[in-house]
Amino acid sequence: MNIIEIITKKKNKEELSREELEYAFLGYLNGKVCDYQMSSLLMAICLNGMSDDETFTLVDIFIKSGDVLDLSCIDGVKVDKHSTGGIGDKITLIIGPIVSSCGVIVPKMSGRGLGYTGGTIDKLESIDGFKVSLTEDEFINQIKDIGFAVTSQTSNLCPLDKVIYALRDVTGTTDSIPLIASSIMSKKIAGGADKIFIDIKCGIGAMMKNMEDALELKNIMERIGEHYNRETICEISDMNIPLGNNIGNSLEVIEAMDILKGKTGSLRDLSIKISTEMVRIAKGISESDALKEVLMVLDRGIAYNKFLEFVKYQGGDINSLKVSNNIQEIKSNKTGIVKSINALNIGKLSCSLGAGRESKEAPIDYSVGIVLNKLVGDEVSINDTLFTLYKKDNKDIDINVDDYYQINC
Amino acid sequence: MNIIEIITKKKNKEELSREELEYAFLGYLNGKVCDYQMSSLLMAICLNGMSDDETFTLVDIFIKSGDVLDLSCIDGVKVDKHSTGGIGDKITLIIGPIVSSCGVIVPKMSGRGLGYTGGTIDKLESIDGFKVSLTEDEFINQIKDIGFAVTSQTSNLCPLDKVIYALRDVTGTTDSIPLIASSIMSKKIAGGADKIFIDIKCGIGAMMKNMEDALELKNIMERIGEHYNRETICEISDMNIPLGNNIGNSLEVIEAMDILKGKTGSLRDLSIKISTEMVRIAKGISESDALKEVLMVLDRGIAYNKFLEFVKYQGGDINSLKVSNNIQEIKSNKTGIVKSINALNIGKLSCSLGAGRESKEAPIDYSVGIVLNKLVGDEVSINDTLFTLYKKDNKDIDINVDDYYQINC
Repeated sequence: MNIIEIITKKKNKEELSREELEYAFLGYLNGKVCDYQMSSLLMAICLNGMSDDETFTLVDIFIKSGDVLDLSCIDGVKVDKHSTGGIGDKITLIIGPIVSSCGVIVPKMSGRGLGYTGGTIDKLESIDGFKVSLTEDEFINQIKDIGFAVTSQTSNLCPLDKVIYALRDVTGTTDSIPLIASSIMSKKIAGGADKIFIDIKCGIGAMMKNMEDALELKNIMERIGEHYNRETICEISDMNIPLGNNIGNSLEVIEAMDILKGKTGSLRDLSIKISTEMVRIAKGISESDALKEVLMVLDRGIAYNKFLEFVKYQGGDINSLKVSNNIQEIKSNKTGIVKSINALNIGKLSCSLGAGRESKEAPIDYSVGIVLNKLVGDEVSINDTLFTLYKKDNKDIDINVDDYYQINC
Repeated sequence: MNIIEIITKKKNKEELSREELEYAFLGYLNGKVCDYQMSSLLMAICLNGMSDDETFTLVDIFIKSGDVLDLSCIDGVKVDKHSTGGIGDKITLIIGPIVSSCGVIVPKMSGRGLGYTGGTIDKLESIDGFKVSLTEDEFINQIKDIGFAVTSQTSNLCPLDKVIYALRDVTGTTDSIPLIASSIMSKKIAGGADKIFIDIKCGIGAMMKNMEDALELKNIMERIGEHYNRETICEISDMNIPLGNNIGNSLEVIEAMDILKGKTGSLRDLSIKISTEMVRIAKGISESDALKEVLMVLDRGIAYNKFLEFVKYQGGDINSLKVSNNIQEIKSNKTGIVKSINALNIGKLSCSLGAGRESKEAPIDYSVGIVLNKLVGDEVSINDTLFTLYKKDNKDIDINVDDYYQINC
């Protein structure tokens, strides 16, 4: 067996055996396969795909490359939640408190953002003192005590996925459905949850640009879950427009708290939907019973208090959240109804303000971002503020409003 | 512009502009693009192809990455010949003397072999003293004096092709028709010949396994030639069975001399066909007139004497050729007619005897190889010798004759 034969097989659309996948991927981890050979194989996988069996095997290789978290010492059903990433997606900060308030354990490992899609870890770091890197013991103890914890991925969980992900990122091989599915599901399974909920974002502001791809990703992830006997539910949600009003790190934490305090709108609706689904699969109850529980903990402020407890438990000072004073309001140049808001362009703009990182080591400014003052369906008059920039400094930014808002007169 | 966007474009089957191709390929040469990014792009090219315009541009980038040989100081039409590589292909050593004896200049740059297909340079190195690496002045002077010279590719000719070829070799990205065509044609054009003859080998012992691919390669190479105003003729010849009787370095030089001395058979027929075509395009005469000239220089021993002159001019002692005394005859296990000889397996066997190199730095044993005692169409009786191994030592090699010869009873 040699790596060139393995690459050639995949190039010729042949199926790779477990031995061949192990030779290639474990070989890469231990330095026997070079990065230029792995990237060639990854491109062949991007273009020629992988069968279910190959994908299951790759998940297995990823999982076995590192430690597996054992959460069996914790009573109750553990449900992990993952989003494939979008603009303004602060849902984890909302559903974690809601679902754990309903008595379901939410052990959440999160990542940092790259490019214009943010990461939950970055958002939490906008809170002074918040400890994002918990030891395994700290993580387990917190889950036992309050039912919800968020930690950055430990270095021993799927280390092979980590190096492959980094290589994909710099070789144009990110958007492969089997590779995306293997990467997400291996981490979720190694993370030890009993059940897995995946929020697949679909639209111009997401990795999955169209419903066909999103459905394919849903199907393979659910089949991986079934193969590993971990009930996996994938929901596809829209990412053509940003999620909620706020984009940026502090701004998103603030909006999550607003939702937990009762703010209405599509972000609250989606949060309730996802929470209900997580409670339903965890408890094996009907959707309407799950919904009742979710609305109860929201309406009575139980979920909001859980959020405050969670931040405090991880050392954060919620009063420390800072939003920049350098404000620039972007006005409408017409009167009409907001037809659409371009999620991708808003995400890129937020990133260029300093809210995201363009390379892995770039620093983030937690206080900058964007607030959408008008949402889809809102009526606007000429000169109304459509959105507001929170900037590093007072320098005016030249904005073509039509790149961001589509308004029908 | 960045390399990930360029890779992604090619992954999405979009055409790359000259600027993008230069950014990627020249960037690789000067270290701004990493090898793992180039290999990812090469795999995307392998699987998604390149348009004619992209291919012409890549040829141009390859050529301009180094020097271009100027042969205009030499009178007469210069015709270069190239083979895409096969088992037992010693045609260059035959047609060079024939065509130059007809008054056509043959300035030949050759490569070394890799794997089971041999290279002309290796074959010539089996002659003691033969100098394979000529300076530009030596090369030009020799062509002026005797009309024929063979030199290994100079380091300044298409240096970019050299590094890309080396990367393709270790990343499973060799068999891409536009990449093969660009690699060959850029070197031929930079080599300064007026007209180019390409012998495309097709069959199990060649890079092109089927006629469809061979025709596609022929078409794009001829179009490249037309684009650069260098008349290019490609002929497709069979490589399902080895060419001639002898495989191995000294053995192939000996067979080339045998042909020049009058030995008949399919190798002579193909050599005459190629020589005739080269003389025809060089002189602009009819095929039958060209054939007459070719047969004349062959029959009168002029081409054979030219071969001896050529070897002597480059410092070689033709009497030094050594063939191993460690002989093993492989016998037929049935009586019948030879239906086929597996070129690929014969090539691999020859390579394993030490006649070829499995990695770039491996040494070659010039005295080993294989002689096919029976050719396709020959009648054989049980226990007749089918082929003879010339080995490093006297150790018997276990051979399953059915892997090499197909005999119909």
